[in-house]
Amino acid sequence: MPKLALMRRVLASNDALAAAQRKELDRHGVLGINIMSGPGAGKTSLVERTAEALSGNYRMQVIEGDIQGDLDARRVAAKGVRCIQINTQGACHLDGLMLGPAMGEIDIENLDLLLIENVGNLVCPAEFALPVHYNVTVISTPEGSDKPAKYPLMFSKSDVLIINKIDLLPFVDFNVSALKQAVRKLRPGITFIEMSAKTGEGVEKWVAWLEQKLRGRRRKQ
Amino acid sequence: MPKLALMRRVLASNDALAAAQRKELDRHGVLGINIMSGPGAGKTSLVERTAEALSGNYRMQVIEGDIQGDLDARRVAAKGVRCIQINTQGACHLDGLMLGPAMGEIDIENLDLLLIENVGNLVCPAEFALPVHYNVTVISTPEGSDKPAKYPLMFSKSDVLIINKIDLLPFVDFNVSALKQAVRKLRPGITFIEMSAKTGEGVEKWVAWLEQKLRGRRRKQ
Repeated sequence: MPKLALMRRVLASNDALAAAQRKELDRHGVLGINIMSGPGAGKTSLVERTAEALSGNYRMQVIEGDIQGDLDARRVAAKGVRCIQINTQGACHLDGLMLGPAMGEIDIENLDLLLIENVGNLVCPAEFALPVHYNVTVISTPEGSDKPAKYPLMFSKSDVLIINKIDLLPFVDFNVSALKQAVRKLRPGITFIEMSAKTGEGVEKWVAWLEQKLRGRRRKQ
Repeated sequence: MPKLALMRRVLASNDALAAAQRKELDRHGVLGINIMSGPGAGKTSLVERTAEALSGNYRMQVIEGDIQGDLDARRVAAKGVRCIQINTQGACHLDGLMLGPAMGEIDIENLDLLLIENVGNLVCPAEFALPVHYNVTVISTPEGSDKPAKYPLMFSKSDVLIINKIDLLPFVDFNVSALKQAVRKLRPGITFIEMSAKTGEGVEKWVAWLEQKLRGRRRKQ
């Protein structure tokens, strides 16, 4: 099966590239976070909330991945945070190669936190390692709690699962405990954070998690 | 750019295969519909509603595409409709090659309507032609009305856009007229159907559209 073999080589090259890029972050004590989700689950709202909470105390850089356009980068820049927009021109994910030019442009010497917002897609982004220390996936309650069974790879690669749009729980069919049970089977020890990025409920738990990781980085330096 | 050239060859081969498969449908007067959306927008609920409305009068076959599992196929089978589940084993879309074995299994001589539910993904499925006559995309109101700007290919290839979960409109930020305006630029003449597959609101418009197309097929025979 030559197609599969080729794919495996591409993934291995990307792993090596992403690992080298991550070492650069480590050398400068920068925390890297990859945010993934399906379309419209609330990744950009999460980035906005993070900017509001942390940009006063930490030096932040955001990289926005979208197939085309700069809607999300404009939203983030409006929060006063440095932001680079990557247009994948049709590609369904970010990878190390696409991030290369952006990684060269960021001011890594004056940086604490790098947030990378991946392309909205519950499938492909999970296959490609990025220069980050943690993968964070956002699932929103209107999507339904059956998603782990259908998109297992992304959940199995996530360190944090943000259950977003909990303000809509009364109006949708979403079983929080069934979701958690299914996700724990794919990724034991995963951290769950229930949130409404819209109302702000639960955002403080996410910020506390991030600050703990940021303090860990600083101590390391 | 050898990578792009290879991709184009793969897509061209798939176009040819899907066209041949569609000719088989034409020979038997079968209407083929490809249903696409991001994860959790309501494709399976749409198929369930369609089965409830039409399976008494038309001979239906459903093909369910999922990365893994058979949750959706079980839901459809519970409506008394013939259903084949395809597991893509990680692949982010269906294509003609994956559909080949399923197309060989369906009882095409005793069939009016073939519904193919694609993998939940707003990106990749739009690139691969299937043996169908119409592409139907489902967007749900909690996803936000900015999606056409970010995922233009899927909207540009759709004949019908179902705006689902309109029961949630009071609780989410979704601008129906802005969405329609953006989509019309990508696909002039597209048919919009506002619906709540959950409450049943608007389902009759979808059923009417389908029945019109089904009657057209039968006359052709």
